Amino acid sequence: MQTYKANIKILPLKELLDPQGKAVANNIGSLGITGVQDVRIGKFIELYLTAESKAAAESEVEKACKELLANQIMENYEYEIEEFQAD
Amino acid sequence: MQTYKANIKILPLKELLDPQGKAVANNIGSLGITGVQDVRIGKFIELYLTAESKAAAESEVEKACKELLANQIMENYEYEIEEFQAD
Repeated sequence: MQTYKANIKILPLKELLDPQGKAVANNIGSLGITGVQDVRIGKFIELYLTAESKAAAESEVEKACKELLANQIMENYEYEIEEFQAD
Repeated sequence: MQTYKANIKILPLKELLDPQGKAVANNIGSLGITGVQDVRIGKFIELYLTAESKAAAESEVEKACKELLANQIMENYEYEIEEFQAD
């Protein structure tokens, strides 16, 4: 068995307003940070799992995204899977 | 002026317990998702900004992370900046 690390990115769908992101974008100027046009805020998840193969790991990660981590009505997800060696 | 897109990843420090991640890791098995060892949950932020140069954009993004987006007591951040062309 090999350990894999999945880097999962979950972001609000482009069609939807992202109120948290909009609030940051509208107020970041008052901190002296200039030029910001838009901000979108989502989740980043590192998931460590053991599996027989990268394909098997991918199938578990896909299931985790679909059934648990992302709300597909409001969010989309993408991920990359890499082999992981503990230090 | 050029538009840049910063992809910002903010994660709880490795030294800290991540209760949200632990809760997911401990319960994901009940969904039939096997092999998960650990989960860490953070934020992913897409920040679009205009700046004179990539270096200038980087300095604004660094300031945004430090002063607003990340809580450096509990989180660390990393980012990549790319040129962005609107469709």
